[in-house]
Amino acid sequence: MDKKLLKQAIELAKANVEDGGGPFGAIIVKEGVIISSAANKVTQKNDPTAHAEVLAIRQAAEKLGTWNLEGCELYTSCEPCPMCMGAVYWAHLDKVYYASGHEDARKAGFDDSEIYSEMKKDVKDRKLSMHQEMRAEGNEAFAKWMEKVDREEY
Amino acid sequence: MDKKLLKQAIELAKANVEDGGGPFGAIIVKEGVIISSAANKVTQKNDPTAHAEVLAIRQAAEKLGTWNLEGCELYTSCEPCPMCMGAVYWAHLDKVYYASGHEDARKAGFDDSEIYSEMKKDVKDRKLSMHQEMRAEGNEAFAKWMEKVDREEY
Repeated sequence: MDKKLLKQAIELAKANVEDGGGPFGAIIVKEGVIISSAANKVTQKNDPTAHAEVLAIRQAAEKLGTWNLEGCELYTSCEPCPMCMGAVYWAHLDKVYYASGHEDARKAGFDDSEIYSEMKKDVKDRKLSMHQEMRAEGNEAFAKWMEKVDREEY
Repeated sequence: MDKKLLKQAIELAKANVEDGGGPFGAIIVKEGVIISSAANKVTQKNDPTAHAEVLAIRQAAEKLGTWNLEGCELYTSCEPCPMCMGAVYWAHLDKVYYASGHEDARKAGFDDSEIYSEMKKDVKDRKLSMHQEMRAEGNEAFAKWMEKVDREEY
């Protein structure tokens, strides 16, 4: 844990508010070296997935030439939302250091807490309408995957 | 619910296995018109966030010129993982139609179920190491956000 790096992520968040973006910043570090840094660009880029953590992960993967970020750590100004936590797991990051919590984000008008709450519910109990159909046909894609001898697992 | 569209998402998933990618495909539709379609590109693009749903959402937002995809529906070959579900909420999609479930993905070697299980736990009980520090400093970014009169909320 390097407090200077967490401070730097927070400064990215603050500077981004001045630039017209959301108050979030993130940095990815490997063996003490900064690999990537980003601020939230949802409104500036018209990209609902452009959270600071997602952007920092994408940039780090591009820089290191691999989708597997084992050995890397995330410093972020706020506890990652469910989308960003999912990205952290898929990227196999080692650790997450964060400053504000998702309840702090809620007080500032962000939906993180509500999304966390939705994700804990069964699909049928969510506010978002979700409908499953054609499961057998869908599973044909997985069968094809399992049959492929040289598949690259991730 | 248009079965042809779900079938098309499944065909994208199958074709992507042939192309060396993961077995997932997604389509975004607005008022019956296809806005975007994508297959999983994690390994081909070295991007851990390049799930079919995330790519389809990003492309739809770019095409429509807005991060807000209200009025759009997602057709996807498999139940979205937590990262993609987060993206669905942030994009404000109206509905999700899916074929395979996350337990089917698990059987094919994908971590969706484990990530769902981790997300339901308190931060301190997760396998992934997460550490909170400097909360007050982090909240300065939110204070700056709340003070900004012309902030663009999302």
